[in-house]
Amino acid sequence: MPWRRKGSRAGRGSTCRVDPVPVATPISAPDSDLANVTFNAEGLVPAIVQEHGTGQVLMMAWMNEDSLRRTLETGRTWFWSRSRQEHWCKGETSGDRQFVRQAYYDCDGDTLLLVVEQEGRGACHTGERTCFYRAFGGPSERRALGAAE
Amino acid sequence: MPWRRKGSRAGRGSTCRVDPVPVATPISAPDSDLANVTFNAEGLVPAIVQEHGTGQVLMMAWMNEDSLRRTLETGRTWFWSRSRQEHWCKGETSGDRQFVRQAYYDCDGDTLLLVVEQEGRGACHTGERTCFYRAFGGPSERRALGAAE
Repeated sequence: MPWRRKGSRAGRGSTCRVDPVPVATPISAPDSDLANVTFNAEGLVPAIVQEHGTGQVLMMAWMNEDSLRRTLETGRTWFWSRSRQEHWCKGETSGDRQFVRQAYYDCDGDTLLLVVEQEGRGACHTGERTCFYRAFGGPSERRALGAAE
Repeated sequence: MPWRRKGSRAGRGSTCRVDPVPVATPISAPDSDLANVTFNAEGLVPAIVQEHGTGQVLMMAWMNEDSLRRTLETGRTWFWSRSRQEHWCKGETSGDRQFVRQAYYDCDGDTLLLVVEQEGRGACHTGERTCFYRAFGGPSERRALGAAE
């Protein structure tokens, strides 16, 4: 994947700053953390994905225990596709990868929250940055999405 | 419920600022918006609740079509309790009410995102502000939760 230039700093010397490709950072979680997660009758738990820094909620998808373990161990988001009945790693095909920076489970242990660095165009297969790009009551609401307002 | 004082402004006169109680604002959504929402086999859709302004993800709960309509029509969050098999309005007992500021549905129409003004202590029945107060890998991760870092 290409390196992204950020700010050419023209007139301030011959150097330019180049942002490095995000690095996947595994999260070392004890089995006692995993034991707090409750999977539903299908062995799945919903996982909310939020963008690090902006706070924008990007998407929600499902994980089983194996995809949760892969996510923590690789620092990338892995989900379980209920329609295809297979694991998928976000961005592996599209290039729009997610690098996990924090991972949480809720008070009941039945929902996950992944805070990620989102690479590329965004999280949504439509090309939108977030899957939540349509507001009840019309497009004017979109301007105020989440913390990015 | 009590009014909250914010900033006594000592030494700047005899007045102090008092924040008003949040006002519930209905969202007028056409039936075509509602028709884009897909409910699961139990007639439910997961609803993510995010705090307006901070961007903090507070909780996730389930709505059926009736609780979604009540949410939009009243500007308060209504959910369906799967364990009690009844509607509940967040904060009606605890006082920790949620006032909806924006409401979104995702690209597949099978997940909702409600951006709310959270009243009182917070969203979690444990007394924490967010239900996602436990991080995989330990409490040190909590400091960087979402956009509030």
